[in-house]
Amino acid sequence: MRLEYVVLVEGTVRSRPNESVNKKMKTGFVEVVAEHVEILNPVRTKLPFLVTTADENKDLIKEEIRLRFRCLDLRRQQMKNNIVLRHNVVKLIRRYLEDRHGFIEIETPILSRSTPEGARDYLVPSRIQSGTFYALPQSPQLFKQMLMVSGFDKYYQIARCFRDEDLRADRQPEFTQLDMEMAFMPMEDMLKLNEDLIRKVFSEIKGIQLPDPFPRLTYADAMDRYGSDRPDTRFDLELKDVSNVFTESSFRVFTEALESGGIIKVLCVPLGAKKYSNSALKKGDIYNEAMKSGAKGLPFLKVLDNGEIEGIAALVSSLDSAGKINFVKQCGAAPGDLILFGVGPVTSVNKTLDRLRLFVAHDMDLIDHSKHSILWVTDFPMFEWNEPEQRLEALHHPFTAPKPEDMDDLPSARALAYDMVYNGVEIGGGSLRIYKRDVQEKVLEIIGISPEEAESKFGYLLEALDMGAPPHGGIAYGLDRMVMMLGGASSIRDVIAFPKTTTAQCALTRTPSEVDPKQLQDLSIRTK
Amino acid sequence: MRLEYVVLVEGTVRSRPNESVNKKMKTGFVEVVAEHVEILNPVRTKLPFLVTTADENKDLIKEEIRLRFRCLDLRRQQMKNNIVLRHNVVKLIRRYLEDRHGFIEIETPILSRSTPEGARDYLVPSRIQSGTFYALPQSPQLFKQMLMVSGFDKYYQIARCFRDEDLRADRQPEFTQLDMEMAFMPMEDMLKLNEDLIRKVFSEIKGIQLPDPFPRLTYADAMDRYGSDRPDTRFDLELKDVSNVFTESSFRVFTEALESGGIIKVLCVPLGAKKYSNSALKKGDIYNEAMKSGAKGLPFLKVLDNGEIEGIAALVSSLDSAGKINFVKQCGAAPGDLILFGVGPVTSVNKTLDRLRLFVAHDMDLIDHSKHSILWVTDFPMFEWNEPEQRLEALHHPFTAPKPEDMDDLPSARALAYDMVYNGVEIGGGSLRIYKRDVQEKVLEIIGISPEEAESKFGYLLEALDMGAPPHGGIAYGLDRMVMMLGGASSIRDVIAFPKTTTAQCALTRTPSEVDPKQLQDLSIRTK
Repeated sequence: MRLEYVVLVEGTVRSRPNESVNKKMKTGFVEVVAEHVEILNPVRTKLPFLVTTADENKDLIKEEIRLRFRCLDLRRQQMKNNIVLRHNVVKLIRRYLEDRHGFIEIETPILSRSTPEGARDYLVPSRIQSGTFYALPQSPQLFKQMLMVSGFDKYYQIARCFRDEDLRADRQPEFTQLDMEMAFMPMEDMLKLNEDLIRKVFSEIKGIQLPDPFPRLTYADAMDRYGSDRPDTRFDLELKDVSNVFTESSFRVFTEALESGGIIKVLCVPLGAKKYSNSALKKGDIYNEAMKSGAKGLPFLKVLDNGEIEGIAALVSSLDSAGKINFVKQCGAAPGDLILFGVGPVTSVNKTLDRLRLFVAHDMDLIDHSKHSILWVTDFPMFEWNEPEQRLEALHHPFTAPKPEDMDDLPSARALAYDMVYNGVEIGGGSLRIYKRDVQEKVLEIIGISPEEAESKFGYLLEALDMGAPPHGGIAYGLDRMVMMLGGASSIRDVIAFPKTTTAQCALTRTPSEVDPKQLQDLSIRTK
Repeated sequence: MRLEYVVLVEGTVRSRPNESVNKKMKTGFVEVVAEHVEILNPVRTKLPFLVTTADENKDLIKEEIRLRFRCLDLRRQQMKNNIVLRHNVVKLIRRYLEDRHGFIEIETPILSRSTPEGARDYLVPSRIQSGTFYALPQSPQLFKQMLMVSGFDKYYQIARCFRDEDLRADRQPEFTQLDMEMAFMPMEDMLKLNEDLIRKVFSEIKGIQLPDPFPRLTYADAMDRYGSDRPDTRFDLELKDVSNVFTESSFRVFTEALESGGIIKVLCVPLGAKKYSNSALKKGDIYNEAMKSGAKGLPFLKVLDNGEIEGIAALVSSLDSAGKINFVKQCGAAPGDLILFGVGPVTSVNKTLDRLRLFVAHDMDLIDHSKHSILWVTDFPMFEWNEPEQRLEALHHPFTAPKPEDMDDLPSARALAYDMVYNGVEIGGGSLRIYKRDVQEKVLEIIGISPEEAESKFGYLLEALDMGAPPHGGIAYGLDRMVMMLGGASSIRDVIAFPKTTTAQCALTRTPSEVDPKQLQDLSIRTK
């Protein structure tokens, strides 16, 4: 008998003799005196890796091999724990929603309609109506809104969603979301219900007590202070707008940026002056990080032990003595600190400093891993500018309701939208929805959808809003990511039993695959 | 304010004055003294039907209209009840499996591999690897077997499945099944667990007490006695093989059928001689029913009040007096009864008499609707003959395990398979699975899959069976149909929130639809 054999043992369980006790094993105190042993199924192939030691050697086994031989990989204790954890999280969520709040689960179609506002759709050719297609849903958004109009006031679903995107490390072509929608519920009650749910998940699954209530940041505040709409607040490193210091500066790079409508913000890194040498700041990892964000340079200043500042000569000399003292004070900097500048259009500045903030926090080990940062970001703008397409597009999706007080200037209105952010990762997002037809039509118009196109794509929604649609809203959580974070897994693929690779393949079943030409003929399609 | 308006009313609830009490309404004893009334959303369109009276008028409203305006249709109390019932059934099932038996739910992929052994697959073109396709799963069969090999001993999933078939009244292109798989569990334990589950569903949802244990019929017995592998046993009308009576008969039609390997079976209809006139038997509905089943005629005999028999002269005269008495006795017939004959190859005979049996039971109102017929059919053959393709094919699917005692003659072996049949409808079906590679290879060979094809399509399964695969088996239930039967709904579409029509369309969202040519270009496909 060898490792991984499937055997049947009949016998008597007894305590181990003292000298055989193994306290490290769960079963180390007992043994079975076998009376009948039978090999039910042997291993008849050379195993690509040893299951029993694979947890420790995990990093030595290529993920490619683990995915190819997933049956063995799933036998590892770590993987088993992840899958069981996932089940327990879902079980807890279901019971909380059902028992505490009377939600009912309703299934919505997988074969649905293509509405490629957003990501790319997976398409399914129709055989019966050749030339037409179903699309796999990117989310059950419109169906759940239809349910609200149908009078189901508390809906949830553990819903499979699909996006045909070029995969990044933590994306999957199919993923699972906890999808919820509620009618007649004020936004405050929705947020409270969701806070309770997530507090319960963290406390029962991980023994982590999250705050009550969750802190909130408006989108504007989050961008101001962290340069991000999903700030990790386990560490400070807040950004400061110092534009006012340089409005009349002799340092042309800065004044020109301000004159063309840009801003100047700083990230003050405590003791960063010692950590990062001038050459690192001019061509090291931290400099590269700024470049990757699209910045054109990384202006910096160091506060010396004597309180003087050092850095680009023209920048230093642009400030007089009082100016220097004021500036250092405004940055909240102390001797030994490093001041990093973001200069230019506000979006780019925030993008760069957000990235640098995270880089520095990791690089200088500033994150207290015993802390848990959870918060709501609210008051998102309804729209953002899509530069390549030269049009406004919906920041969340075009069914998000605007704040009533912003209705007079819809294109720049804020939305009744909220994202839940945990340790700098968006784990859930939602909004109140538009429930009046005229508002919905205006929003579709603003994002450049003609009335004809609106009618053809969203006609049934517009029609439904005219048939007695209640005020409603909801939220969706990325379940895979949530479980990954709860389980401390290093990849989303480690919490999915049969995930796809980063090239959207199933390594186990070798999918996608070629198909019988007869199948394509039935579908009236041809491959190029 | 008009019907279906969405309104907000604030006020004080008080008892109705005696003269206003309406005992027919749930809220007929109270009323609200409104202090504030607000129209949140009016109805701005002419409603296609009145929700409040639609339950009574349901049959007057075309299903086409109901599906097109599904948001209104779902507001009907009947539809709401169906959707809530569905939720309650699923909730009960989940909790029973999780709490009583420690099952865990594991999600398996929707983007999976095409294995068109069985029905036609829905295909999804891959953008990244042009020319290749994913397929939507017809069931999670192989993934759940992989989970067993991975060491998850009790798996379940409420799984979406897909079949691109020409739809019959009660089929949907996407449907939901309760999918279960268990390792190391003897078949008797599996059946018992499933009986307990279904008993619990029926008793808690409908207050119906099903027997313990469920009766069982072997496939052979079921075919013999009812001509069907899903007999409705709420009424008797058992078939009888009377071939022996006619081996030496002068009635050539019968002897020729016997000589070419056929059989002669009868269905004795109590008091049928009076119900069905000779002309009805020669060209009425009952005759048509026989014809629809493919029969070439409908031979019959009537037992007269005086015990004599009447019918086709040559048939009557082929029996002498003693022969007649014996024959009537063998049929279990009494004066006034009608004896219907099935003559020919055994499959055709069973098909015809099964159909006639159900027709007569409905037509003569022989079904006791207070009865509940639930039973297991077991010992299915592994294979059946596919006449058009001139080959054996798997009766269930090619992963079903043969009975160990039949291994010597695999092509005619019986399977360790079981179907659960309720009131003549198969509500669930399962089997023990093959867990040894050599047996699996033999089965694939028998159904005409070459070793190369087996390797390319099922290589990962064969490989997994060599890596320590435990004995395992499972079952799957058609959830939509089960809920339909529990809810007394007349169509499967009435227990699905957003079903497809019989031409596989979503009438609400007008799906499938044409897509942007750019989308097809991205996928490197072209429509013909």
